[in-house]
Amino acid sequence: MMISGERFIVTYLVSGSEQEALAKAKDICIEQTVEFPPYLIPAGFIQDEILGRIESFEAHNQDYKVRISYAVETTANELTQLLNVIFGNISIKPGIRVEHLEFPPALLRNYKGPRFGKEGIRTLLGITERPVLFTALKPMGLSAEQLADLAYKFALGGIDVIKDDHGLTDQCFAPFAERVHLCAAAVDKANKETGSRSIYVANITAPYGQVSKRARVAKEFGAGGLMVAPALVGFDCMRELAENDDIALPLFSHPAFIGSYVTYSQNGLSHQALFGQVMRLAGADVVIYPNFGGRFSFSQTECEAIARAAAAPMAGIKEILPAPGGGMSIQRVPELHAVYGNDVMFLIGGGLFQHGPDIVENCRYFRSMLNSMDQYRKEG
Amino acid sequence: MMISGERFIVTYLVSGSEQEALAKAKDICIEQTVEFPPYLIPAGFIQDEILGRIESFEAHNQDYKVRISYAVETTANELTQLLNVIFGNISIKPGIRVEHLEFPPALLRNYKGPRFGKEGIRTLLGITERPVLFTALKPMGLSAEQLADLAYKFALGGIDVIKDDHGLTDQCFAPFAERVHLCAAAVDKANKETGSRSIYVANITAPYGQVSKRARVAKEFGAGGLMVAPALVGFDCMRELAENDDIALPLFSHPAFIGSYVTYSQNGLSHQALFGQVMRLAGADVVIYPNFGGRFSFSQTECEAIARAAAAPMAGIKEILPAPGGGMSIQRVPELHAVYGNDVMFLIGGGLFQHGPDIVENCRYFRSMLNSMDQYRKEG
Repeated sequence: MMISGERFIVTYLVSGSEQEALAKAKDICIEQTVEFPPYLIPAGFIQDEILGRIESFEAHNQDYKVRISYAVETTANELTQLLNVIFGNISIKPGIRVEHLEFPPALLRNYKGPRFGKEGIRTLLGITERPVLFTALKPMGLSAEQLADLAYKFALGGIDVIKDDHGLTDQCFAPFAERVHLCAAAVDKANKETGSRSIYVANITAPYGQVSKRARVAKEFGAGGLMVAPALVGFDCMRELAENDDIALPLFSHPAFIGSYVTYSQNGLSHQALFGQVMRLAGADVVIYPNFGGRFSFSQTECEAIARAAAAPMAGIKEILPAPGGGMSIQRVPELHAVYGNDVMFLIGGGLFQHGPDIVENCRYFRSMLNSMDQYRKEG
Repeated sequence: MMISGERFIVTYLVSGSEQEALAKAKDICIEQTVEFPPYLIPAGFIQDEILGRIESFEAHNQDYKVRISYAVETTANELTQLLNVIFGNISIKPGIRVEHLEFPPALLRNYKGPRFGKEGIRTLLGITERPVLFTALKPMGLSAEQLADLAYKFALGGIDVIKDDHGLTDQCFAPFAERVHLCAAAVDKANKETGSRSIYVANITAPYGQVSKRARVAKEFGAGGLMVAPALVGFDCMRELAENDDIALPLFSHPAFIGSYVTYSQNGLSHQALFGQVMRLAGADVVIYPNFGGRFSFSQTECEAIARAAAAPMAGIKEILPAPGGGMSIQRVPELHAVYGNDVMFLIGGGLFQHGPDIVENCRYFRSMLNSMDQYRKEG
């Protein structure tokens, strides 16, 4: 059997003493590929090519950093199987964390990544430089008409991207088609009045057979983007949406149900590997994640690492936009701008209701926080 | 807005002092539904029906056990949204674990659950009482012919269910269609020789658009069951496979990539909630999970809780079979039989190669471990 010899590398942080960590590293090589008693692994092709290979092993703070390479062919050019090789069985073994991924062009050329990416989103919105203003339609329980009214006000107040809250799917009190129809029309109406190019993003996190259907319905009704939670629909569902030429809308990934992969530093994937590298490979144009200092647990360092991974070179895979949110307030915009720079979407949901009783005015205040910063006056 | 008033209940274990835990409980009610500043939540329908509701709150070991109810309508009768309400955003908040799920008939009637269940699997295999013998084709890197040769030997030796290793998808060294064709034929050949009814289970964990296609190919080639890893393809993908009348094959759920949900007791879902309740609701006829005392980290208590949840009453949703595996040896069969009783599938993979050089003889030895137990002599 001849294979290419091309390999990708996963950096794992492994806990324990040096001896324990080395044993774990050798175990990972087996567990993620042949899953077979070591002394019975067939010599030749399987031992030489299929088995994971330790490329480096070194102490790192209290842990050990191990780089393990795998043959590209073990992944069958499938995102599902790539994730399985990276972290399938060892997800069940404590003390192993995926820290970083190194993909060679031989692997990346099988993935298209995001269709729009950072630049595509900017072009679509007509925003050349400044951060993008982003909010969510909520609370669950409002009718489609009420949500559309909110969407109209958000757009009128200058919010660039208005998405469904991730809990809005197809509930009887705001059915999908009706909600998407009314919300897209409401944003369009506001755009005609203001001359802006705001978009409405429909949540299409849905049962397996419904995702593509809802994507098509949303596009038909004029949605400007689509949101899915990959932990609920599968990462590869997002990839397929990104590659679908009939849909061709920007994709927003939502972190619902994904937290367990990052919550404990001794297990799962690092913030940058999961929200930066995996989401990007899986076709997200915008990655939504909980910002530091909000009501979730990510640290500033972790959030900055996500933003860096969203923009790091990735052989032909487009840069994407980080969208930190979750318990954010308008007042934090200057602070967050200092951290993230321009290539960011500020997602303020509930906080946009808290500034004052008039939603449109609150949005204008949010917008003014950007305009007050010198470098954006020209786009104000 | 009128809704049914039917609610389902999630038991969470919440860490912290009593005051902290109560604050977290109130936060869960908001976060999982309206995700909105508390003082702005609209009175009436949204506060009364949509918002989560604390049904009970009590100390439990070092933690607090909180039962929170949600309106069935918040889930839109979608498994994806049900999981989102149960643990979507709070997956990102440390110190919250889903311990148990209570679903009313009003919710369960929207789910068909497993098509076969425990009894259906027994009927299919012609095994009325004894535990089922289960193994996996490996290691990755073997050709389709080599895997089929193994499948033949396993079936000849009396293994009831022979599945692909979960890492076998569509690699160039053993392409899906070729592998499934040859392995199904090999098991069929052995059955004709022995008069047994062993089945081959094809791994159809695959890219989004490929799962159903591979299911149909596997069925056409004579596979007797299908395996998916729900954390890779999505839980709802499995549900849809289970409900698909054109496929109508038993489904085996594999735990690849799912470990982060159960690894730390302060986050995620309990073993019984995830592997027992969710997998069953999502249509798995057989739930594969790492057994205690093997090379993974589950405790005996956790494993027993999974088996209990697989068989607990669930209003019309069939009982399913637990399939503990992972680092198992033939010698442990009597011990495990004492723990699990008859309604179990003993999954021995690599261990089946370790007993001696002759695979067929190893399988017969595995089978003999059951036959040696008095109560199975009649089926020997």
